[in-house]
Amino acid sequence: MKVAIIGFGSVGKGIASIIRDKGLGITVTAIADSKSAAIDNSGLDIQSVFIAKENSGLCGKIGLTPDDVISEADFDVLIEVTPTDAETGEPALGYIRKALSSGKHVITSNKGPVALKYPELKELADENGVELKFEATVCGAIPIILSLQNGLAGNDIKRIYGVFNGTCNYILTRMADEKLTYSQALLEARELGYAEADPTYDVMGIDAAIKLVILANTVLGYKKSLEDVEIAGINMITSESLQLAGEDDLTIRLIGEIDCEKELLRVMPRVLPKNHTLVVHGTLNAVTAETDLAGEVTLIGRGAGSVETASAIIADLLFIRKLNGRCA
Amino acid sequence: MKVAIIGFGSVGKGIASIIRDKGLGITVTAIADSKSAAIDNSGLDIQSVFIAKENSGLCGKIGLTPDDVISEADFDVLIEVTPTDAETGEPALGYIRKALSSGKHVITSNKGPVALKYPELKELADENGVELKFEATVCGAIPIILSLQNGLAGNDIKRIYGVFNGTCNYILTRMADEKLTYSQALLEARELGYAEADPTYDVMGIDAAIKLVILANTVLGYKKSLEDVEIAGINMITSESLQLAGEDDLTIRLIGEIDCEKELLRVMPRVLPKNHTLVVHGTLNAVTAETDLAGEVTLIGRGAGSVETASAIIADLLFIRKLNGRCA
Repeated sequence: MKVAIIGFGSVGKGIASIIRDKGLGITVTAIADSKSAAIDNSGLDIQSVFIAKENSGLCGKIGLTPDDVISEADFDVLIEVTPTDAETGEPALGYIRKALSSGKHVITSNKGPVALKYPELKELADENGVELKFEATVCGAIPIILSLQNGLAGNDIKRIYGVFNGTCNYILTRMADEKLTYSQALLEARELGYAEADPTYDVMGIDAAIKLVILANTVLGYKKSLEDVEIAGINMITSESLQLAGEDDLTIRLIGEIDCEKELLRVMPRVLPKNHTLVVHGTLNAVTAETDLAGEVTLIGRGAGSVETASAIIADLLFIRKLNGRCA
Repeated sequence: MKVAIIGFGSVGKGIASIIRDKGLGITVTAIADSKSAAIDNSGLDIQSVFIAKENSGLCGKIGLTPDDVISEADFDVLIEVTPTDAETGEPALGYIRKALSSGKHVITSNKGPVALKYPELKELADENGVELKFEATVCGAIPIILSLQNGLAGNDIKRIYGVFNGTCNYILTRMADEKLTYSQALLEARELGYAEADPTYDVMGIDAAIKLVILANTVLGYKKSLEDVEIAGINMITSESLQLAGEDDLTIRLIGEIDCEKELLRVMPRVLPKNHTLVVHGTLNAVTAETDLAGEVTLIGRGAGSVETASAIIADLLFIRKLNGRCA
């Protein structure tokens, strides 16, 4: 299977290094960053691309763009991991549309395009007989979309709820365990690289809300947008409220929830018993699906990180190969 | 997609009723119990089979056997849920071999055939270009095999460990929470239908060990048998030891573990912190996979029950359809 990787930041590099190290029967025919691209339809020497990037800051020929890669390289699957604006979904959206239209499978780690345009993109994929996969967009390494779409296939999903943002979870964990103030915990999260310089997106619940929109539209067939999500973040939570909760063996977590009966999406801090399955620690994510047949199924794992994101993308890639392998 | 169901106990009935109620685009062309079978290649009226079974104890024409169903009915997928001896794997093993050899996909809930003969059965399936699926054999409704084989594809699995037996977990939970003795908790588990009249298979760790063998051979490609598993059950655990552990915020759980570095399988009671992810309550199961890329991923859910087993089988069925749908 031949793949093209567009975007050569930490996730793109992670994917390339896994393929370089493990093989997995995958040939990388193109790698692009924002300023250059390397194309070799007989298979790139991945290590050389790494060396070029390290030496010159460019992964290949200057002036070649991701668009050129999609038009000119020979590949079956586009791995789209470009830096993309979550609000507009661009430039990822354009690349994804172009690749699907050309009959290429697409895997993306960008939330924007999936949250904004899933119905359109899915239709485009179906028309062209190809797959659009996006496991990495929700809860990193946790195979939550696979489990909901396939592991619980045949089930009616009644509710999906859980911890969708590791940054908030880290802050709340530290505030409860170490009696830190919100500002102190946020500062610590920044220093450890768990929070961005501008943490608004995470701490105000927007990141979790976007993940709910993705699950709602892709797994449940809804047509929701960010505006449909009731959102409250963790910025008003005080250390005192966590200490008080703790005295009763309770704690606070930022919980995202899809109530399927009411088609309601919301993100808000919730008080939970300390021994509740969803009370995970540090940067972990945890999601429970409540279903008619299987009951409650919970998945817990790492929701972020470039290797974890790469893990989800590689799993999507091997899944596409499995789906198409039978017909070869 | 046409399916034949052999075995019409609680699981077989569960599957038939889900298909009857939900449709799912599935046609049931045959249903067999141990003494009779109903075959209609244009699609059985499932409700009539239920009524016949209730009135006469037979689901169809007396004398017709599962073997007859496999030879004579028109179906794509055999759902094999017959009462089967876990030690010999029969009669399931014979049915599975026959169906795979005839080019039919097979889904089974029977642990015996998979634990005993997976490499042979997998080869037979591959030779005939069909699938052999068995999600229901390990941890009931939890999509653990799907997650390991597909969700974590590309990962090197270093360790799989968890709570694989709900009966033991129930007994230990009750001993810890209510200070019951082992015998009292076992009696309660029996009264609630969580333990068999002869609980040896569960409480001595054999059931958990068989599940480890299945995961080892199917997901990791080992060739292990029950004799290769180091096993200790929960029958020697005292209420006092649980109380003592509890004083230090610890508890005891029966943990099954596959150590991939040493290719070692073992089942034994372990002391764990009460807030450990694997310390689930009641009859729940919980499994953690430790991997190189995704880190630790944990799945928690219901490990037993006829509807939960049926859920896993239906998911297998829809997965087979998805895998084959692209080639149609």
